[in-house]
Amino acid sequence: MQRIDLKLGARHCPILIGRGLLASQALLAEHTGVRQLMVVSNETVAPLWLPRLREGLAGRSFVQCLLPDGEQHKTLASATRIIDALVEARMNRDCMVIALGGGVIGDIAGFAAATYQRGVACLQLPTTLLAQVDSAVGGKTGVNHPGGKNLIGAFHQPAAVITDTDTLGTLPDRELHAGLAEVIKAALVADGAFFAWLEQQIDALLARKPEALVGAIRRACEIKAGIVARDEREQGPRAILNLGHSFGHAIETGLGHGKWLHGEAVAAGIVLAAELSARSGRLAAAEVGRVRSLLARAGLPVDPPRLGRDRMLALLGMDKKVEGGRLRLVLLDSIGSATCTADFPRDALEKLLDDSAGTGAT
Amino acid sequence: MQRIDLKLGARHCPILIGRGLLASQALLAEHTGVRQLMVVSNETVAPLWLPRLREGLAGRSFVQCLLPDGEQHKTLASATRIIDALVEARMNRDCMVIALGGGVIGDIAGFAAATYQRGVACLQLPTTLLAQVDSAVGGKTGVNHPGGKNLIGAFHQPAAVITDTDTLGTLPDRELHAGLAEVIKAALVADGAFFAWLEQQIDALLARKPEALVGAIRRACEIKAGIVARDEREQGPRAILNLGHSFGHAIETGLGHGKWLHGEAVAAGIVLAAELSARSGRLAAAEVGRVRSLLARAGLPVDPPRLGRDRMLALLGMDKKVEGGRLRLVLLDSIGSATCTADFPRDALEKLLDDSAGTGAT
Repeated sequence: MQRIDLKLGARHCPILIGRGLLASQALLAEHTGVRQLMVVSNETVAPLWLPRLREGLAGRSFVQCLLPDGEQHKTLASATRIIDALVEARMNRDCMVIALGGGVIGDIAGFAAATYQRGVACLQLPTTLLAQVDSAVGGKTGVNHPGGKNLIGAFHQPAAVITDTDTLGTLPDRELHAGLAEVIKAALVADGAFFAWLEQQIDALLARKPEALVGAIRRACEIKAGIVARDEREQGPRAILNLGHSFGHAIETGLGHGKWLHGEAVAAGIVLAAELSARSGRLAAAEVGRVRSLLARAGLPVDPPRLGRDRMLALLGMDKKVEGGRLRLVLLDSIGSATCTADFPRDALEKLLDDSAGTGAT
Repeated sequence: MQRIDLKLGARHCPILIGRGLLASQALLAEHTGVRQLMVVSNETVAPLWLPRLREGLAGRSFVQCLLPDGEQHKTLASATRIIDALVEARMNRDCMVIALGGGVIGDIAGFAAATYQRGVACLQLPTTLLAQVDSAVGGKTGVNHPGGKNLIGAFHQPAAVITDTDTLGTLPDRELHAGLAEVIKAALVADGAFFAWLEQQIDALLARKPEALVGAIRRACEIKAGIVARDEREQGPRAILNLGHSFGHAIETGLGHGKWLHGEAVAAGIVLAAELSARSGRLAAAEVGRVRSLLARAGLPVDPPRLGRDRMLALLGMDKKVEGGRLRLVLLDSIGSATCTADFPRDALEKLLDDSAGTGAT
């Protein structure tokens, strides 16, 4: 078992990675204590992995709340269903919400835990690569609003993140690829050598070789934990973890949540960010080629849908990274180094979206 | 102008108290900066005090969101209305929500600010005595759930609390009395000399003598700020500020939110807590008399409604202060000193509720 500690002042959040961890009674007992438990999962994941978690919980009773599967259900209504279930079960402030599933389940259950009785404990048990390397780590929780992704949310650190890598065995290829987008993003913003390693290991990762997967998860978590430890609430440096996400959120909202997977939209967004970095004179053109090529090899879309330039600009206007009216984006200075900045030519952005997203509406 | 600083590690929240502050352009400019502003108020307070705030904001544009008046509107639906308005106005992460009103407006607007884009700035402008001495101070935000009060919420410190004591001039007597309940509570848990001062000043307070009101607000805020500074998230000592609130919440939920004012329910709850403290051998019987007498002189109910013992016990069972299945209550050791404890005889509680709330249902 690999262990990473995300340190946040006096608090810390252990991230544990290994095979078969969901069934580990000692580990689950250590992290759940004697709390009342509610397991939140979805109708796809629960049949596959809830039996193993039940084993890990060693016959302890818990309340279940199963949501329908999919990003389109990442709504305030779903969070409210969990809260209703917590009230119904008369859970007290000392209870724990266990999120068993991908990023959507982790974000909704985390938000319900953040707001039930002004915050109860949450244990993240991510079952998708994307959640294991990104969304379950760092305490961002939230749900979507018709006006944009994650517009309602809270920062709420989990008590622990326990990643059972066996869960990747049942993950559809498309979701594996979406997770690789966030692994590649972590490398791009912080570690050029890790990016080069991914270029070498991409076929092993696609073939789900365990040692390659554990290596990628571990390093992506280390990078994220290091950045979040310096800036938990995204006042500054943490923003670089949003590489590709402003464009990605615009794509997701523009298409309607759930059409593209989050990681797919982020992949196309990363290419746009890299392209804009090059057109702003920050990044060498050859580096854009490496970025595009690795994402394509990972089975990800590297061009945005043709939503139209003006629609994309409007969607970017509602993005959380707008500050004082100016759009801030994460741009690359090299492979392994990124900056969140409003310092890029507006016309370069417009031209880029003209070229890639089309001039007209869909 | 009086100033108290609530210190929370590196953060701090200034509390400013004085006449005419809503119209102070310099003060408002200092605390709002150049942010996009949304003013949240209700249909009762806005006609009275929004014109003065408009003067203080010196012609700056802001978006308004007016909610209906009353505790029955302290719902997730109201918080969602604010968030919808923030999205609609395309407010970014650097915006500020200004709560102009009593505890209900402050709690809902604070919760919307806590969760919009994972947290934006909130300025509290309390216009009721209760909000000025208690609910606007300390960062508790939230809304009610059919299953109980404040079951959905967040800790989110305001950027500042600005109390214009002129607003008390338009406050109905019943609301003034409700606010005095929280002033008396602050004295009971932390400062016996302040309680004695309140015994002397109660007629001046009821006559709304400015110097008495400012003195009471200032000392109640100091007490609360001192306790919150030691325990922002209510892991321990802050719980004593809930004196009377477990019973009070049970009364409010049992009657239906909005029937009794929060302060009225707390007053009856404080008497129950004092009575239970005496019956558990913690508090002298004469002290219970002083507590009951001051609350009665303040125009507050000192007996609970006859909801019935069993209903009260059930309502207490869902309270946030239940831990590991045992009911914890705030009890008085003397006037000026309180403890949050599960150490009281269960049958004393049952007998007390029998005597005061009745054996049958309403």
